Amino acid sequence: MTDTFPRELRQALAETFAAVLDGADVLPYLDDRSGAAGARALAVVRPGDAAEVATVLKLAHRHRVPVVTRGAGTGLSGGAAAVDGCLVLSTERLNRILEISPEDEVAVVQPGVINADLNTALAGHGLYYAPDPASHAISTIGGNIATNAGGLRSAKYGVTRDSVLALDVVLADGTALHTGHRSVKGVTGLDLTALFVGSEGTLGVIVGATVRLRPLPAATATISAYYPSVRAALDGVRQISRTGVVPAIAELIDHSSLRDIDENSGSRLTDGGHVLLLVRTDGHAAAAEAEDVVTALRHTGGDARRVTDEAEAERLWELRRSGRGRTRPLWTVGEDVAVPKSKVARMYEEGERIGRRHGLDFASVAHAADGNLHPVLSRPVPEGVAATAPAPPELDAAADELVHAALALGGTITGEHGVGVTKRRWLEDELGAAGLALQRGIKAVFDPLGILNPGKAL
Amino acid sequence: MTDTFPRELRQALAETFAAVLDGADVLPYLDDRSGAAGARALAVVRPGDAAEVATVLKLAHRHRVPVVTRGAGTGLSGGAAAVDGCLVLSTERLNRILEISPEDEVAVVQPGVINADLNTALAGHGLYYAPDPASHAISTIGGNIATNAGGLRSAKYGVTRDSVLALDVVLADGTALHTGHRSVKGVTGLDLTALFVGSEGTLGVIVGATVRLRPLPAATATISAYYPSVRAALDGVRQISRTGVVPAIAELIDHSSLRDIDENSGSRLTDGGHVLLLVRTDGHAAAAEAEDVVTALRHTGGDARRVTDEAEAERLWELRRSGRGRTRPLWTVGEDVAVPKSKVARMYEEGERIGRRHGLDFASVAHAADGNLHPVLSRPVPEGVAATAPAPPELDAAADELVHAALALGGTITGEHGVGVTKRRWLEDELGAAGLALQRGIKAVFDPLGILNPGKAL
Repeated sequence: MTDTFPRELRQALAETFAAVLDGADVLPYLDDRSGAAGARALAVVRPGDAAEVATVLKLAHRHRVPVVTRGAGTGLSGGAAAVDGCLVLSTERLNRILEISPEDEVAVVQPGVINADLNTALAGHGLYYAPDPASHAISTIGGNIATNAGGLRSAKYGVTRDSVLALDVVLADGTALHTGHRSVKGVTGLDLTALFVGSEGTLGVIVGATVRLRPLPAATATISAYYPSVRAALDGVRQISRTGVVPAIAELIDHSSLRDIDENSGSRLTDGGHVLLLVRTDGHAAAAEAEDVVTALRHTGGDARRVTDEAEAERLWELRRSGRGRTRPLWTVGEDVAVPKSKVARMYEEGERIGRRHGLDFASVAHAADGNLHPVLSRPVPEGVAATAPAPPELDAAADELVHAALALGGTITGEHGVGVTKRRWLEDELGAAGLALQRGIKAVFDPLGILNPGKAL
Repeated sequence: MTDTFPRELRQALAETFAAVLDGADVLPYLDDRSGAAGARALAVVRPGDAAEVATVLKLAHRHRVPVVTRGAGTGLSGGAAAVDGCLVLSTERLNRILEISPEDEVAVVQPGVINADLNTALAGHGLYYAPDPASHAISTIGGNIATNAGGLRSAKYGVTRDSVLALDVVLADGTALHTGHRSVKGVTGLDLTALFVGSEGTLGVIVGATVRLRPLPAATATISAYYPSVRAALDGVRQISRTGVVPAIAELIDHSSLRDIDENSGSRLTDGGHVLLLVRTDGHAAAAEAEDVVTALRHTGGDARRVTDEAEAERLWELRRSGRGRTRPLWTVGEDVAVPKSKVARMYEEGERIGRRHGLDFASVAHAADGNLHPVLSRPVPEGVAATAPAPPELDAAADELVHAALALGGTITGEHGVGVTKRRWLEDELGAAGLALQRGIKAVFDPLGILNPGKAL
C-alpha cells in the first residue's frame, strides 16, 4: 500500500494536516487498550476541521488507502487499531464544544471532545450528558458514538444512541452528510443517525454530533448492600424493580472483583461481606426511593444501608469504575457479554464453571439493571516466566465458551465495547448469515471501495 | 400487474391465507386515515403466522408483485395505502401477545396487537409499554414500529424506537431475520433494529417484536394552566425545565384548538382562558414535582393548578387526545412538523402568518416538551358547495410554506406520523441528495426488486 501512495501526497499530509510520519511518534496511534497487535500505518493525520477531513478522505479514496479513525484510543476491542498501510485519522484536534443550548437541551460537539469535559462545561447550566462509560474521564464523545458506548446509567437513561440526535459525517469519498434533527422526534426516512452510532468507523467519519442533554437530577442517593452470594444480590435487584423504582445505577461486584479492587486500590471492601451491590437513585424522589431500595434489599437478605457520607459514596463509585487492576503479572482475557436480566445469575454460574474447567480465575462486575457483565478470566503468570510470554490456549478456549454461553442464554457477544477485531469470530454466531449479509450490503452502499476501517466490526 | 399474476395463485392465496378478493370487502384495506387516494389491490392476504408471511413474500417476490403491509390503517401519511396491483398484507390475524416477562422487563408481541391491549395485559404485572401515540386505543404495535410512532410521553420516555429491543422480520424474498437482543445493551454490528423502526414497510415485514417494559409509575399528577398567549405558555414550559423536573407530558393547546374541542366534544375549555397547557408528572415524586411545576407556571403568569380530581384529569387528557374534530364541513390540511424546543413559539407565529396570508384558519396542538406540533390549516366549505368538492389550492400552498418554515427553523417535516405518500415531496428538502441516495441504496440492499411498499417513504 505504501508504495502506491505517492510520496508527494505524504508530504502534503505532513504539511497540511498536522500529520505524524515519523516511526516513534506514530506508535501511540496504532493501538487501543485491547492489546490488538499493532500494524504499520502510512501516516497519522490530525485534521483540524470537517473540510480537512473531507480532503483526507478524498485523497484516501482516490488512492484506495484504508482509513482508521480514532478518538482517544481507549477502546477494548481493537476497533481503533491501525491496519497495515492505513492512514490513521485522529480526531484529537476536533475537540471543541461548538454550542450549548439550554433552551433546546442540546449540545453540538466535535468528535474529539472528552466525555467528562462536556459534563464539566454543562454543570453551570444545570444540565448533563447521560452516557457514562467507565472511561468517561479519558474517552471521546466521537469514540463513544462509534461504539455506541453504554455505561452505568444505561438502564434508566439509555445508551449513547439514545442521546445522539443528529450527526455531521464525512463519507468515504469526502461527501458531507447531515443526519437527524435537533428535536427528540423526527421520522423522515430511515434512521441513518442510529445506523452510524455503533458503526465503529466503517460507514463514515463523524465530524460533529448534536447530543441530547438532561436536567441535572435534583438529588442523588447511594445505597450499599453486601450479600452472601451473587444470586441473592440479583434477587435484591429484582425486588427493587417490584417497588417501581428505576435506579439510576445498580452495580454488582462479585467477590473476586472486590478482592482485585482491594489489592489494587488499597481499599478494604472485602471486609464488608462476600459480594457488593451498589445502587444509586436520583431525581426529586432520590431520598424516598433510597429508603424503598434499602427496604427491598434487606427484605432479600442484603446488609443494606444508605451511604450518607458523600465522600464515601464518591469513593465507592470511583472504586467500582476504575478500581480493578492487577498488581501481579496475570494472563487475562476480558469479555463484555450482555444477557436478559433474569439470566445474569446463570451467566455468573456459567463463567465460574468455565473458569474451573480451564483452571482459570473468574471475576465479574455487572451492570445488574441492564444485564451487561464484564467477566475476566485469568491465571497468574508463573514465577520465572516473562509477563509478556504468550498466554496459554485455555484463555482463548474459555473466552469462546463464555461468549457461547451468553448466546445460549439469549444474550449478545458485546453489550457496549463493540466488535472491533477481538470479537469478529463470533459475529455470525449472533447475527446469522442473513443478518451479516445485510450488514455487509449496507457497508458497501456507504463505502463501496471498503477503505473505512477494513477488517473491523462487520 | 393483475394479468401477470397467475389466477391459480390468487386462488391459493384465498384458500391459504384468509385472503379477501372480492371488491367490496377489499375496500376497507385500501386506505388509511390520510385520505390518500385508494388504488386497486390484487388481493388482501391475512397470514396467521410468520411462515405464512414468508410464503406470501416468496410468491410476491417470484412474480414481482408489490406488497403493502398494514396494521389497523390509522396512519395519517398514506404509508399503508394500497398501490395499484399490490397484495395488501394485513397483520390483523398476527395479534397475539406471545410473552410477558416481568423478570426481563420485556414483552414479545406479534405486530397486530393493539397498543392499548398490551398495556391492559401488562397492568396486572405493574408494568407498561411507554410509546403512546394518540391513536393508542386503535393502532397496532406493528404500525407504531413501522412509523416510529411518538406520542405524548416522548420527552421523558422516548419514541417507539427507544422501546424496541429486537425484531423478527421476513425479508422481501421470504428470508427470516432476527435483529437485536433481549437486553437494553447490545452493540454487535450495525443497528438493524433501529433501521427497521420507522422504515414504513419498505425493508421487510415485521412479524414479531421484543419490546421494553417499564415499572408503572408509583403515582401521577396532572397540572392545568391557562395562559394569555402561546408564547407565555411556552415560557412556562421552559421554566419547568429550569426546576430540573422532566414532565412525563406537557401538551399545549392553542385557542383555536380549544374552540374545536369544545365544539366537537361539548366541553367548555375556552371558558378557562386563552390557551391551555396540560402537564403530567409521574413517579415517586409526582406530587412534589407537581408543586414545583405549579410554582414555575404561576411564576410565568399561568393560571395554574393541580387537578386533584382524577376523573377531571382523565377527562382533560382524553379531550386532548381525541377531542379535536369538526362538526361543520371543512377543507383541512394537517401537518406534523417538529422543531427545536426553543423554536416552538416561532413555529406558531409562522403558522398563523401563513394562515392569514392564504385566508385559512390556523390551529395547533403541540407536544411542548419535544417540539412536535400538529398544525391544521382549514377553511369552511361554503354553503351550497359539496363537502367532497376539491379543496382550494391555497391549502396545498400553505402546507408547503408551513413545512418549509419548519425546515428553516432547523426542524423536520414529520415528527411522528411518517412520510408515507403525503410528505414525499419534501423528502429531499430535509435529507439532501446525498442522504436520500444512501437511503435508497439501503432500500435496494433489503429489497432489490422494489416490491415492498413501492412509492412510499423513500
